[in-house]
Amino acid sequence: MQNNNKITPRKLSGFMELMPEKQIIFDNMRDKIQKVFSRNCFSPLDTPVLELANVLLAKSGGEIDKEIYHFYKGDTEVAMRYDLTVPLARFVAMNYDKLTFPFKRYQIGKVYRGEKAQKGRFREFYQCDADIIGNEQLPIVADAECVNLIYEVFNELNFDVTINVSNRNILFGLVENLGYKDLTMDVLTVLDKLPKIGKDTAKDWLKEYGLNENAINTLIEVCSLCGESDFILNKVSVLANNETYNKGVSELKELFGYIKAFGITNAVLNLGIIRGQNYYTGTIFETYMNGHPEFGAICAGGRYDNLAEYYTDKKLPGVGMSIGLTRLFDQLDSHNMLGESNLNITELEIIPLGDTITHCLELSTYFKSQDIVCEVNYDTRSFKAKLREADKKKIPYILVVGENEVASGTYSLKDMTKGEQYNLSKEECAEIIKNK
Amino acid sequence: MQNNNKITPRKLSGFMELMPEKQIIFDNMRDKIQKVFSRNCFSPLDTPVLELANVLLAKSGGEIDKEIYHFYKGDTEVAMRYDLTVPLARFVAMNYDKLTFPFKRYQIGKVYRGEKAQKGRFREFYQCDADIIGNEQLPIVADAECVNLIYEVFNELNFDVTINVSNRNILFGLVENLGYKDLTMDVLTVLDKLPKIGKDTAKDWLKEYGLNENAINTLIEVCSLCGESDFILNKVSVLANNETYNKGVSELKELFGYIKAFGITNAVLNLGIIRGQNYYTGTIFETYMNGHPEFGAICAGGRYDNLAEYYTDKKLPGVGMSIGLTRLFDQLDSHNMLGESNLNITELEIIPLGDTITHCLELSTYFKSQDIVCEVNYDTRSFKAKLREADKKKIPYILVVGENEVASGTYSLKDMTKGEQYNLSKEECAEIIKNK
Repeated sequence: MQNNNKITPRKLSGFMELMPEKQIIFDNMRDKIQKVFSRNCFSPLDTPVLELANVLLAKSGGEIDKEIYHFYKGDTEVAMRYDLTVPLARFVAMNYDKLTFPFKRYQIGKVYRGEKAQKGRFREFYQCDADIIGNEQLPIVADAECVNLIYEVFNELNFDVTINVSNRNILFGLVENLGYKDLTMDVLTVLDKLPKIGKDTAKDWLKEYGLNENAINTLIEVCSLCGESDFILNKVSVLANNETYNKGVSELKELFGYIKAFGITNAVLNLGIIRGQNYYTGTIFETYMNGHPEFGAICAGGRYDNLAEYYTDKKLPGVGMSIGLTRLFDQLDSHNMLGESNLNITELEIIPLGDTITHCLELSTYFKSQDIVCEVNYDTRSFKAKLREADKKKIPYILVVGENEVASGTYSLKDMTKGEQYNLSKEECAEIIKNK
Repeated sequence: MQNNNKITPRKLSGFMELMPEKQIIFDNMRDKIQKVFSRNCFSPLDTPVLELANVLLAKSGGEIDKEIYHFYKGDTEVAMRYDLTVPLARFVAMNYDKLTFPFKRYQIGKVYRGEKAQKGRFREFYQCDADIIGNEQLPIVADAECVNLIYEVFNELNFDVTINVSNRNILFGLVENLGYKDLTMDVLTVLDKLPKIGKDTAKDWLKEYGLNENAINTLIEVCSLCGESDFILNKVSVLANNETYNKGVSELKELFGYIKAFGITNAVLNLGIIRGQNYYTGTIFETYMNGHPEFGAICAGGRYDNLAEYYTDKKLPGVGMSIGLTRLFDQLDSHNMLGESNLNITELEIIPLGDTITHCLELSTYFKSQDIVCEVNYDTRSFKAKLREADKKKIPYILVVGENEVASGTYSLKDMTKGEQYNLSKEECAEIIKNK
């Protein structure tokens, strides 16, 4: 290949790639989420990005959705994971005998979906998942632990959110009570779309399915209930009466008891949330950013009866939550909500003047021993250019080291925020920077 | 698909997947490496796992090595990254105008090579890379910064290592001086294998290439030089005299001056290290675990003249280092060297007796507010079974909460290490656990 025959450097569309300043903010968010998972005693898991295609796609009987990245390597058909739940199911089924239940694990990793590229949709994106898996049974307190995890995560991120909680048995039981059990999934699909299509359209659609007016009004009414749990549970407890419905009501009562015990202040009972996916069987939750309904649910999850039914006869009920971090970050970014905080990590830049670089390296070792993040700027640009650049990068302190400074052991420390300059020993400089 | 028609849960061979206890240790190592990169002012970068195949494989003119995972998604041929250097080159070439040079970046991520599966070789593995990229030029102090990074990383990991440093210009110049310039790459390939094949075989091979005995002896002699830099540089400075050779000697002199300034105590000049890859053009380094030569180089890198020549006419010299973390972890694990330290993160387990779970959740919120990592064990197993398990998991403290405890506000705290038990208020418990 000839050297002047260059390949244009491009990346695939739909793949986020951040410039360093934004990557620092992204990593900071990811680290905070991880910290909360970890301090709540969830264990880390790091499954491979590639899985055997027939194992990954067990649910669909090996049929491959066009979104899935899959290919043959030799004779083996492999596929890239499209979520972190299927790999968790595979892992738990494989290692059932070695695990202690309830098994609490978190995984933060990239997943792949070859969706049509469009704004705000990514083909490679981070999911931050935490799940609790029981063996045969799992008490409702696990669901509360999950809600608490969400509460702590968004506190740590300093986001103003509301955690909406419901239980699918309420609507399952209600539809059954109204006499339309066979239409349950159709009815829920319409109700799931309610916020988007509005009451009138929803009513029309439900009418088309053959529901009577009373049933339709009751369903729409129930889906609009959102607020303090005791109040709403009192209100709805008389609306229907069958095993499923009563289970939903009593599980919610128990759950909100625990939610109060945890001291969670921003969880509401919202009977209007549905979660499209069929596999949720009890508690469900969706978290919204207050004042930003356009973000959609920034964190969601719920209870499922059987995690790994495609791999094992063991009954493994679970409850989990997931944050689509790449999408959330992108939304915050496009709304200028990433925060103004100075996330540049450099606290001190040392600029050598003349032949003082060796001394500057010694100084950098000293400052690092004092837990100060510092670097020596050995670039060949002019002193002025370096100052301008340090200012642009919002580096708070600059140490100028010329030959006089080396001889005297006294250095000029520039406080870039105050625009002041001091002549100090290295120990005095460290003291000032640390006490900033 | 029938429910009793289970798919056997398997993972692909050659893909590491750790159980939680080991994953905690792995993550701990990864976090320490990242911390050192970050506090040395390297910026994080997170390029996609998938790249356009013709961009990723620009170097080979689009020819695809059989190790590469590649496939078509629609009409687009994509490939999974096999290292982090090519994506860095692509990124820097793409964003040249937006970056400030020298550009210091780190990336810790998984890369993919479909090698033949064998013990200690992985098809998916973490690389931890840090590089400094200059614009047109990059001073030797950058190489020293890289050596210092390696020094700090292994200090942070508490590994006893030796950093071997050399400069390829020494052997380039020496071979030229001996009159075999055309055979340079052949000679270096033999010398690279020297530790494996031994002196006698190496001599035979070099003889076959047509080298005379004096030249062979000189080369073997130089490759055996390893130790304090001043001593060795004095010794070799008279061995040859040409531009390349002298450049090697003077760059090493300058580099070791900086290495001393940084206070690095475990770097030696070892003229026997070669680094197989052709793209290193000056400084090279290999780090070995003391007492464990069988691990091979656990970290390596060096200086290259031109990072992104396949994408841009800009000359971008760089220096970088890389740790193959997955392999290193596997080696440590198989030598029982992962450390005995208690890496279980749970400090306190709260066990409810009777109907006290709500109170236990309140207590857990209190203890977490005191920065104590705690969890409530709401499993249905017997109290004895829970104690056994907590002991196995090396949880240091257990709080037993029965109905009497709830009423009195005094709890039994078991110190699992000492085998003692105290009756205390929650504040007193927190005090003890924090001061452990």
